[in-house]
Amino acid sequence: MIPIFKEMTLKANLFGIDINKCQNHKDVNDPDRKIIPESLGIVPGFVFLTVSISSQLFMKLSILQQLEFNAALLSICFMILLGFSDDVLDLRWRYKLFLPLIASLPIIFAYGGATNIVFPQFITNIIGIRILELGILFKIYMSLLAIFCTNSINILAGINGLEVGQSLIIAATIILYNFIEIINHGEDKLFENVFSLSIVLPFFFCSLALFIFNKFPSQVFIGDTYCYFAGMTFACVGILGHFSKTLLFFFIPQILNFLYSFPQLIGIYPCPRHRLPKFDFKSKTLSGKSENMNLLNLFLRILGPKREQDICNIIIIFQIICNAIALTVRLSLFKL
Amino acid sequence: MIPIFKEMTLKANLFGIDINKCQNHKDVNDPDRKIIPESLGIVPGFVFLTVSISSQLFMKLSILQQLEFNAALLSICFMILLGFSDDVLDLRWRYKLFLPLIASLPIIFAYGGATNIVFPQFITNIIGIRILELGILFKIYMSLLAIFCTNSINILAGINGLEVGQSLIIAATIILYNFIEIINHGEDKLFENVFSLSIVLPFFFCSLALFIFNKFPSQVFIGDTYCYFAGMTFACVGILGHFSKTLLFFFIPQILNFLYSFPQLIGIYPCPRHRLPKFDFKSKTLSGKSENMNLLNLFLRILGPKREQDICNIIIIFQIICNAIALTVRLSLFKL
Repeated sequence: MIPIFKEMTLKANLFGIDINKCQNHKDVNDPDRKIIPESLGIVPGFVFLTVSISSQLFMKLSILQQLEFNAALLSICFMILLGFSDDVLDLRWRYKLFLPLIASLPIIFAYGGATNIVFPQFITNIIGIRILELGILFKIYMSLLAIFCTNSINILAGINGLEVGQSLIIAATIILYNFIEIINHGEDKLFENVFSLSIVLPFFFCSLALFIFNKFPSQVFIGDTYCYFAGMTFACVGILGHFSKTLLFFFIPQILNFLYSFPQLIGIYPCPRHRLPKFDFKSKTLSGKSENMNLLNLFLRILGPKREQDICNIIIIFQIICNAIALTVRLSLFKL
Repeated sequence: MIPIFKEMTLKANLFGIDINKCQNHKDVNDPDRKIIPESLGIVPGFVFLTVSISSQLFMKLSILQQLEFNAALLSICFMILLGFSDDVLDLRWRYKLFLPLIASLPIIFAYGGATNIVFPQFITNIIGIRILELGILFKIYMSLLAIFCTNSINILAGINGLEVGQSLIIAATIILYNFIEIINHGEDKLFENVFSLSIVLPFFFCSLALFIFNKFPSQVFIGDTYCYFAGMTFACVGILGHFSKTLLFFFIPQILNFLYSFPQLIGIYPCPRHRLPKFDFKSKTLSGKSENMNLLNLFLRILGPKREQDICNIIIIFQIICNAIALTVRLSLFKL
């Protein structure tokens, strides 16, 4: 569907300029320059919703499970709608912070799990508390998690394939985590893990299709549509799969990027719209800009100029390493 | 929000030409002609979703009720997404028939009511059957109802304020019906009626705001976004409010329009995109075209040329009369 829809988005004036493919400075403003269809995240969004909604035909769910499933899809659908509207209409910042909060409410209301933190034994030995009941604070945490997830992928971006690439790794980590949990706990927490898989598996494969078209050199751009879609999907499976704390373990590069970006995001330093690295037209390499404070520029400043596809692979490999360590730590933590 | 968003849709190249406001034939293709922002249905859509989702904070719902509520909002949200995508991307016909079917599935799955028809006593006396169990056929009926509702408002259109006007009357009829049912049955079917009201009341007031901007002379157009949004909202409240058969009583003008349009819709006669009446630039009146087979043209052919605002009012009054009769018949039917 992506090749079909990319003609449609072009016709609707939804396109971007791939600035890192231009031949020279003049080319950037050349009306005949190569334009890339935007917002193709709408395609995996539609396919995901269609597949997930229809899959209820083949699942035998209890009322409570059906509620969680519908609430998750409602949150995700609302975020896709918000993302696509943002791509088309260029929404103001206040809507962007307010609406993800609203979109997260269905999963928060549907959440029937515990609202406490269970500490690993070795921490219990130190602080003397095994279970900390958080109550309403936990629900606030989940809302903030949803807002963080939807925005964190969006701000670690700027080169071909990076947003979808990192999302694929996070999704793969969640899939692996769920399978390991099913093997470890069996019937015990089976529903939560199967629930999570039933959402994250279709998401993974829809994203894979998009990645084929979005990876270097991009034939399509994904838009905010995909970033919001991916973020809310992770928040949903984390919250309703009852591993909302573990989920943050799989977002380490995004957390680092958020913390490093924070002074710029809240306006202490001026914040340009895209925070791209500097592109050298001659050598076709990217180099980090100190005024653009995100992980992409930081990596380029540390590692020196790199080709676009190389730095994308480096960050994706960094995500793989982080998530592999996080998964190992998480799984061994509760055995201590 | 509508004045703010209309600037944004204009900027995004979402606009229509109000052909019935042009001064002459040349004006229709004049690049400087008056353009009207399109797809403003997205505003009541956002507001409705925000209000309905947040209202769960103040409602004490059982798990089953929460499921129905979330399923309804998921169906509606998916239709708004589909409508807005259609406005922006101009989706093909096959998607337009396929996706409303998918969008209706959440409410069908969540539907926990009866799947039978209870005949009024005087019909029972004739055919000898009191209750006819339909089973799966009833679920198919509900899917078709959802597809009918989403498309029927879209095809009784073409002049300023008509789509929102008819939706307001249908919504008002449903509100009245629910209040009367609450008075008549009290506690008995209270949840179904309150559920229906909790969705249709915010819909009514969101639509009213849109109507102020969309009524003659239109400052904004509503797009497929609104038509799909309205249709799926009615289908949801009808199905989950357990009055899916009664609902059709309130769609008599739409049913007549559908039946009359049917030969053209399935391609027996050629079907132009908008099926507008003929506009006389001099007298500023509309007159019916025999080749455009919809209620609007039929009324104009019977009544003679009318000004745009007058024929709109006539059709809306026709809807009011139909619905008043339907409501009276429906309420007295089961006392026979």
